Order: sequence, then structure tokens, then C-alpha cells
Amino acid sequence: MNSGAGGSGSGSGSGSSGSADGGGSGSSSGGAGGKVEHEERRRQIAEALLRIADTQGLQSASMRAVAAEAGVSLRLVQYYFQSKEGLLLDALARLGAQLQDRMARWIAAADSPPTPRSLVTAVLSCILPTDAESRRITRTYAAYYTLVLNDPELLARHGTGQADLLEGFLAKQLHAARDAGRLAPGRDPAIAAAGLAAMVNGLGQSVLGGQRTGEQALAVLTRHLDELFTP
Amino acid sequence: MNSGAGGSGSGSGSGSSGSADGGGSGSSSGGAGGKVEHEERRRQIAEALLRIADTQGLQSASMRAVAAEAGVSLRLVQYYFQSKEGLLLDALARLGAQLQDRMARWIAAADSPPTPRSLVTAVLSCILPTDAESRRITRTYAAYYTLVLNDPELLARHGTGQADLLEGFLAKQLHAARDAGRLAPGRDPAIAAAGLAAMVNGLGQSVLGGQRTGEQALAVLTRHLDELFTP
Repeated sequence: MNSGAGGSGSGSGSGSSGSADGGGSGSSSGGAGGKVEHEERRRQIAEALLRIADTQGLQSASMRAVAAEAGVSLRLVQYYFQSKEGLLLDALARLGAQLQDRMARWIAAADSPPTPRSLVTAVLSCILPTDAESRRITRTYAAYYTLVLNDPELLARHGTGQADLLEGFLAKQLHAARDAGRLAPGRDPAIAAAGLAAMVNGLGQSVLGGQRTGEQALAVLTRHLDELFTP
Repeated sequence: MNSGAGGSGSGSGSGSSGSADGGGSGSSSGGAGGKVEHEERRRQIAEALLRIADTQGLQSASMRAVAAEAGVSLRLVQYYFQSKEGLLLDALARLGAQLQDRMARWIAAADSPPTPRSLVTAVLSCILPTDAESRRITRTYAAYYTLVLNDPELLARHGTGQADLLEGFLAKQLHAARDAGRLAPGRDPAIAAAGLAAMVNGLGQSVLGGQRTGEQALAVLTRHLDELFTP
């Protein structure tokens, strides 16, 4: 579902060449070269950025701060990510992949065979900040949202692929539910999809903002799905 | 509707005394004292903070930066607002009052006599970022949200009064609509109120994030209200 964001971000890694500064001071094992080693270094750096985004916001995430968090040299960060923007987008793609993994796990745990209702329920429930992983993911996305608000140019390049993909997935499931006679009368699948996606984002925000618990947000979502689908 | 937030913020002004630094270098007229003059200075400083929040986010809003934006001395800012938190909460109360004024104008422009549907429509429509004023208000609230995410202690003191007041207002109107036979069958007023408030927040986020225009967000909201109320 997040392959749109992943596609736009992962392009920043192509064309990496030249000599690497092997001087990582932290947890990474030494030794040069190898595609796996390079990817491991990139992952280590990008995840350091995501940790900063989660805990402090992205306004604090200078290349130097990321290097310190990752336990590597500034030169190594600059070798793997030529620009701050390249690092931000690569890390965003990894965040999208983490959410996609979580969705896949929640879908796998849902009814078998899956129904439109069980798929919509699994995907939306897993987005809500109800546990440590989803709270981290929601907080980190919030950090990106703040960054985009204060940097409209980044917004233009960042795109909105992921949100549109989620809404498209929901609309497809709701159309299938309607065709199967499982959607409440008078409901429009595309409008309901847009409303559910927005509602889940707003509920997540209210959880992180302290208005309600994750369990309470999940209860609101569940009641809405009970009203949207017919048994 | 925002009197809860207003009440918690405006308390920071009590007990102001001592000698003011009259050295404003900017647009304010000179001259000492007077309750009106004091309130005008406080307003001038708080609105400078709100402008910074709107355009740069609150992580940039040091007392010094606010003084520069307001065109007054740092000492004057410190005289009127003994702490950064006092200034943040006072400005938040003013932002709440601005949104409340906007709601009152939109309610006054709605059907007369008002119905539950016209009141819910007016209040939710006016929150969506569809014009310069509502975009500014939404962006500024987003800046406060970011601040709260990165400062859980502020969150504990900041409270959630305003969001709860909005949901309470919506729930009251939806109960009235149900009692008048105007709510679609199977809808729960309290759940619908929580869902609408979250959806409008999420839609506003999607507008500022570039996913859709304000008009498109308004169309999604309107269709949801069409489905929620019976004619």
C-alpha cells in the first residue's frame, strides 16, 4: 500500500559510488564494501533519522545529529546521502515499508478468507496508535507532516501518493462490499473511503494529543464500521 | 466553544505589576500605563507568536524571536509574559477566540432559525481550511500540536478542553436531530460526533498536506452530512 511513497524515496540511493569513509564509531561492524554492507549502513543511518523524528521532531535532524544518533561519522552520512532531502525521503520510504509490514501482519491475522469488512477493519485498526509500534509510526509521520507544513517546496516533491493509495484501497473494498450487498443503504464508497481515512488520521492525532486512549479511538472506529457495513 | 482553552490560558496575565520597559521599536504607539494599553501590548506580542507559529512552527518561537517579530524589546516581552509557557498559553487562548469568532460568523450566516443540521454544518465547515483565515488557524493549531508531541509535560498542563467542547457541541446537536427524527437510522449521536470531529481534523490535515483542496475537503464533509441527516 505504501509502495508509492517507497518508490519516490528509494530512488535517492541509486548512483552511490566512490570511496566510503569506513569510520563508523558505533555499533556497526567494520570492514569495507559489499552491497549488503552498504544497505545495512544506509538502513542504520535512516533509522537514526526516524528515531530523532519520533522523539524530537525533524527540525532537530541535521546531518550531524543523525550521524551522532547512528554512531557513525558525519562524512559517512554524507557519503551515503548526498543531501538532507535524500536522507529524509529514504527514511520516509522505510517508514512506509514498516507500516506496510504492520498492515500485512494485521491482514494475515484477520478473517480467512478475507472479506471487504475484515480488510478495511484490519488496515484502519493497525494505523491507530494503540501500541508502541503504531504510536512510534504515527508520531514519526506527524514529524514529517510538520516538516512539510514548514517547507512547501518539499511538499511539491514529496507528493501524496501514500494517502491516495490508502483511500484507493478503502474505496475498492467498499465498492466490493456494496456490490455484495454489505454496505449500509445510502452510503457512497468513495466518500466513505475518504471519510474513514481522514477520521483515522484525526483519531490518531487525538490519541497523541491526549484527548482519548488508543482503545477509545479503536472503539469509535469500530462503531463507525458497524454502522457502515451490514451484517 | 473555545472558552475552555481560553480560561486556561488567560490566567497567565493575572498579577502583572512592576515597571514596564516602554522601549517598543516597532509599530506600537509610545506612552505608559493604562489597562487598555497593557492589553494592547499583550495582544501585539501574542499575535507575533501566532504569526511565527503559522509561518515557521513553534520550535523557532523563542522569547527573543517573538520580541523581534512584535517589534518590541525582549525585556517588554519578559515583563508581560514571565515565561515562555505563559506566552504560549495566552496566544493559544487568543487563537481559540479567533476560531470561536469565525464559528459565530458562520453560524449567523446559516439558516434562520438554526437547525441541528445547519449548526453542525456551519461549525464543521468553518474549521476546514478553505480560505486564508482558516488555513492560518489550522496551520497554527498544527504548530501547537507539534509542540505538545515533543513536550509531554506541556500536554499534561495544556489539557484537551477545546476538542472535548467541540465534540460535546456536535453530540448535543446530533441528539437533537435524532429526537426530531432527522438522523439516519442506525447512527449513534455520540459516535457520529466523535467521528465527525476527527474526520474534519484529518481532512484539514490532508488539505495542508497537499492531498486535496479545501473545496474537495468541504465536498467530502458535505456528502457525509447528507448521509448522516435525513431531509
